[in-house]
Amino acid sequence: MRTDLCDLLGIDHPIVGFSPSEHVVAAISRAGGLGVLGAVRFNDAAELDTVLTWLDRETGGRPYGVDVVMPSTVPTEGLPEDLNAMVPSGHHEFVERTLLRLGVPPLSAAQDRPGVLGWLHSVARAHVEVALNHPIRLIANALGPPPPDVISQAHDRGVLVAALAGRADHARSHVRSGVDIVVAQGYEAGGHTGEIAGMVLVPEVVDAVHVPVLAAGGIGSGRQIAAALALGARGVWMGSLWLGTTEYQSGHALREALLRATSSDTVRSRIYSGKPARLLRNRWTDAWSAQGAPAVLPMPLQNLLVSAAHDRLMASGDPTVVPMPVGQIVGRMNEVRPVAAVLSDLVTEADETLGRLHKLL
Amino acid sequence: MRTDLCDLLGIDHPIVGFSPSEHVVAAISRAGGLGVLGAVRFNDAAELDTVLTWLDRETGGRPYGVDVVMPSTVPTEGLPEDLNAMVPSGHHEFVERTLLRLGVPPLSAAQDRPGVLGWLHSVARAHVEVALNHPIRLIANALGPPPPDVISQAHDRGVLVAALAGRADHARSHVRSGVDIVVAQGYEAGGHTGEIAGMVLVPEVVDAVHVPVLAAGGIGSGRQIAAALALGARGVWMGSLWLGTTEYQSGHALREALLRATSSDTVRSRIYSGKPARLLRNRWTDAWSAQGAPAVLPMPLQNLLVSAAHDRLMASGDPTVVPMPVGQIVGRMNEVRPVAAVLSDLVTEADETLGRLHKLL
Repeated sequence: MRTDLCDLLGIDHPIVGFSPSEHVVAAISRAGGLGVLGAVRFNDAAELDTVLTWLDRETGGRPYGVDVVMPSTVPTEGLPEDLNAMVPSGHHEFVERTLLRLGVPPLSAAQDRPGVLGWLHSVARAHVEVALNHPIRLIANALGPPPPDVISQAHDRGVLVAALAGRADHARSHVRSGVDIVVAQGYEAGGHTGEIAGMVLVPEVVDAVHVPVLAAGGIGSGRQIAAALALGARGVWMGSLWLGTTEYQSGHALREALLRATSSDTVRSRIYSGKPARLLRNRWTDAWSAQGAPAVLPMPLQNLLVSAAHDRLMASGDPTVVPMPVGQIVGRMNEVRPVAAVLSDLVTEADETLGRLHKLL
Repeated sequence: MRTDLCDLLGIDHPIVGFSPSEHVVAAISRAGGLGVLGAVRFNDAAELDTVLTWLDRETGGRPYGVDVVMPSTVPTEGLPEDLNAMVPSGHHEFVERTLLRLGVPPLSAAQDRPGVLGWLHSVARAHVEVALNHPIRLIANALGPPPPDVISQAHDRGVLVAALAGRADHARSHVRSGVDIVVAQGYEAGGHTGEIAGMVLVPEVVDAVHVPVLAAGGIGSGRQIAAALALGARGVWMGSLWLGTTEYQSGHALREALLRATSSDTVRSRIYSGKPARLLRNRWTDAWSAQGAPAVLPMPLQNLLVSAAHDRLMASGDPTVVPMPVGQIVGRMNEVRPVAAVLSDLVTEADETLGRLHKLL
């Protein structure tokens, strides 16, 4: 299976794989897809720089990309201390009370670290600056088109720009802003997601724009890749599936939670970032939808509020509370395997499906 | 494009079309698909009998089916008067107040008719009894498997039984109950629907059961049919699309509302029947999600509560209030055309897509 996306990105298979793990990203690119590193977790741009230098080496000259989180309208900005002061004390109390009730211990001094700042526009800009000094093929933005000067800088260096869209009108506006590839992210996807399911969204976006479209959301098998291509996508964007690979070095609790979850065990909620995102449903997400839970704060305050709690939840080792964006495809993640084996199976099944479909003619 | 569903049902194209309109149903069957008549609107089984007699003639010997609404657990049953007495007066007041505020006039004496009783188990049973005296090929149930004796009666007469499922475990249980065909109905679908989008649900259901699976939800083009086949479905079940055909003799208001709506203009709500169903979003559905709206009642009380209001809303001629179950594919319904033309385009585009996909190998 080859589409023109393969030529555009210099890859063997029209599979773009997003991961916050550089180990997963390197393995995807080495296996003939395009690995895209999620940069939001890097508070310090120098740390991102080090990881990208590692990727330059470990991808062995294969193309890769970087994903940042830049809302198209710049949200509240400021120093972490000042922003923290904007979080109502009742919200902090709710988080503390909930962690106590869920039996989640505090972090040890060694585990404690500052909250995630990658949601801040200034930090995302620093990510872009660092990334553009590496031989990346693609810069992607999870929340629509990056600012015009970022797009210009990328294009000046021959770097393609991709942006996620959950509606056809958004996709149109992304392309007007200069975006080269639209990722049509359906309701079923993990992380930030809209209301329209991929089956409807992908052909709508394909018909709305003249640039290549990647289908995102709910894709974890070759049959689903073939379906995405049938809908007119030139390839797929996959995120959740890699959480279940050997290279994604998660703790035992997350792995356990992912293996146990069915496709019904996710929830679309604003509690992670302030914008609707699909998460693993568990005792932590349930607490936020129970009566008496406070209203979710706008971006970036909500993530500042919960990011220390996320560290505690993750460190607790309890599979019933891990905070994790994941799509409905989590129901298929029932075995931990190396990225190369997963990718090879995807390609084989997609090819078999295209062959099977032809026999129906 | 042919699958083994064509042989099973005796049809030319693996397209099953649901409609409450016998005119649409006859046209679908005549065009080589399987038309399935929604029976819930018939309060009087004799009236259904007359319409099926008409269908026996108008389908010209082509197969067709009937769809009933039978929850697997029998809900509250009783005479309309007794059931009406179970509806809290505050609910009636809310409905009256809302209709007044939306500018919806009362019905004239000529327009007034009793509420829809098809949601009652006893009425649905009468529908089945009538239907089985006609040469139908399929009996479908919108809410899981019909009771065992209904399945036995159908099988005794060589009639296949289909049931909708929104989860793989439900599909498994349907098949254990004797269902011959599972309709995997995704989140994007109109009417009763679950949380899992088709891209994830269809292959899950296909892998969970050994009977043929139809993909339902979000399908309104040949590309989407090809995608459904890629996911492993043997055919598609389509409902919404036919609302925009010449044969669906709706009033001006509904037609206008359907033509205007985008894929973002639906909402999944329990206000129609008491169970989650996707509806056209408008001032009526918004009123039910506004602050101060009463809690939705269980089936069948909610539909008894709103069915007279539905008649008033529909008769008002106002496109901004029409009560109508419809899927996210409504965004594609931008032109009114005859069923035969719609179906022929679906088949042509599906065939073209299968051909295009093969070239990617």
